[in-house]
Amino acid sequence: MKLLDIYARMKKDIAYVERELEESVHTDHSMLKETSLHLLKAGGKRIRPVFVLLSAQFGRYDLHRIKHIAVPLEMIHMATLVHDDVIDDADTRRGQLTVRSKWDNRIAMYTGDYIFAKALTIAAQLNDPRIHQILSSAIVELTVGEIEQIRYFYRTDQTLRHYLLRIKRKTALLIAISCQLGAVASEADEDVHNVLYRFGYNVGMAFQIRDDILDLTGTEKELGKPPGSDIRQGNITLPVLYALEDPQIRGVLLAEIERIRIADGQTDVTPFLKMIRNGPYIEEADKLSSRYIDRAIDALSVLPDIRAKRDLVDIAHFIGDRSY
Amino acid sequence: MKLLDIYARMKKDIAYVERELEESVHTDHSMLKETSLHLLKAGGKRIRPVFVLLSAQFGRYDLHRIKHIAVPLEMIHMATLVHDDVIDDADTRRGQLTVRSKWDNRIAMYTGDYIFAKALTIAAQLNDPRIHQILSSAIVELTVGEIEQIRYFYRTDQTLRHYLLRIKRKTALLIAISCQLGAVASEADEDVHNVLYRFGYNVGMAFQIRDDILDLTGTEKELGKPPGSDIRQGNITLPVLYALEDPQIRGVLLAEIERIRIADGQTDVTPFLKMIRNGPYIEEADKLSSRYIDRAIDALSVLPDIRAKRDLVDIAHFIGDRSY
Repeated sequence: MKLLDIYARMKKDIAYVERELEESVHTDHSMLKETSLHLLKAGGKRIRPVFVLLSAQFGRYDLHRIKHIAVPLEMIHMATLVHDDVIDDADTRRGQLTVRSKWDNRIAMYTGDYIFAKALTIAAQLNDPRIHQILSSAIVELTVGEIEQIRYFYRTDQTLRHYLLRIKRKTALLIAISCQLGAVASEADEDVHNVLYRFGYNVGMAFQIRDDILDLTGTEKELGKPPGSDIRQGNITLPVLYALEDPQIRGVLLAEIERIRIADGQTDVTPFLKMIRNGPYIEEADKLSSRYIDRAIDALSVLPDIRAKRDLVDIAHFIGDRSY
Repeated sequence: MKLLDIYARMKKDIAYVERELEESVHTDHSMLKETSLHLLKAGGKRIRPVFVLLSAQFGRYDLHRIKHIAVPLEMIHMATLVHDDVIDDADTRRGQLTVRSKWDNRIAMYTGDYIFAKALTIAAQLNDPRIHQILSSAIVELTVGEIEQIRYFYRTDQTLRHYLLRIKRKTALLIAISCQLGAVASEADEDVHNVLYRFGYNVGMAFQIRDDILDLTGTEKELGKPPGSDIRQGNITLPVLYALEDPQIRGVLLAEIERIRIADGQTDVTPFLKMIRNGPYIEEADKLSSRYIDRAIDALSVLPDIRAKRDLVDIAHFIGDRSY
């Protein structure tokens, strides 16, 4: 599989970032070290560092410099996950206990704060003020996105625009700036930064749409958590919005969502999942995701045809197709 | 009173910082705007911005530049307060409802994240990399301090050193870098930065010791919350550590603290307060606070005798004496 080939080829650099990640949460404070390493070991695809490393190849590739982007971006992502788990009362993530369930909400909040602050000390080693400005502005949007998500829980009157803006803030932006900052830190031309931002943004949108689809179509084994987690916490996603537009189903679907809301998510959501799965809504959402992937790949057309470009295209296709 | 004179003289610049603070939390997001403004309006002495403004007078004083330090430092302070209130289950602060009680813990967590991120976007306008490094390292220590505080709740075996390190991280460091960064941003000589850091550190230590004393000696009216809040949440402060060293009282005090711990703080702490107030422990703590004030003022001796220096001395004295 192409993705594995890419990771294999980048193995050395990814391993280096991984070691730096571990070192970065090193602290004399035993509990923080434990919570942070717990998070780190829980893994993930490190997709943000990979995007940084690939994007940096459009400039002067210097791993010792771009690690100051790759490492903090993954850490910021991790910090938001811990805080998310507090909000979601999540007990597991990727099949592992969350910090909030293994310790408690207070520890999880401060672990998030700590990892976040540590990330900033690493980025602060770079002197380019654009980096700090891009990074801090993205984090603001990220926090607004988090709070927006809460505000729109169970809101069946939200529009497609609300949804898209939310996933932009929640997911696409951090991936966009991973690509952009990889290019900035490697001193690529400014139009290259913008192209890579656009690539990352579109890939990020597709990524979150796919993620939202998987929560509706996956099995507990595939997801590491039961399907329907989104609706259980009130998160209305793209296929559900499409279904709500369908007059054939709107009435029963509204009633079903209201039933779940009243039960505060503590109920069987199989009827809900069936309604969504039986219509064309998943397929429609998939189409929009594919359109974002097409736009991402289109954005790259102006870049020189180096291996990193082909890798970015392959990753974009993989994200568009993913069904894991 | 000298302090009021100082604030009166700086009125224009403080008002400017205040307006910038309000503008900085401006967002189209109505709930975040509301929670942030709620926090902002709850007030406070804005002691960190005042220290920034005064310290900047040892270099080229340019309000439009140093606002990028004064505003974020106050915001970072505010962000830690919202997160603290979540940890402490605090319903009021300075007599006002906290964000977590007016909204909820989730909103408070994200409001803190948001204000914190916004603070960074403002500091990011300055190009001096030292500023970002100093700021981000201090924030790391701050988060470690927060988690340390939790870890030492009700720990009667902790030493004076534990306590001092904790209040350094929790309070003194942010005041120290307020003074330091005021000088850095106004391009004062590097030894001036260090002198002002030392001043701020010592003032900050005295400030927190005084604060901890007041929680034991103040009335509900003076404090805006009942006295003994610290012990109720398990926070062992300096006078209590002194009392624990007194063999005359150690036994009964340990039993009393254990009683409060078992009741999870939901009990009458009058017996505890009486024990502490009746001994020489408050006075001893006061002495240590005064020693920090002396050191703070000593640190300034090498600086030129400008008005800002006399103001810093006056504020230090005020903090040493404060009994509000």
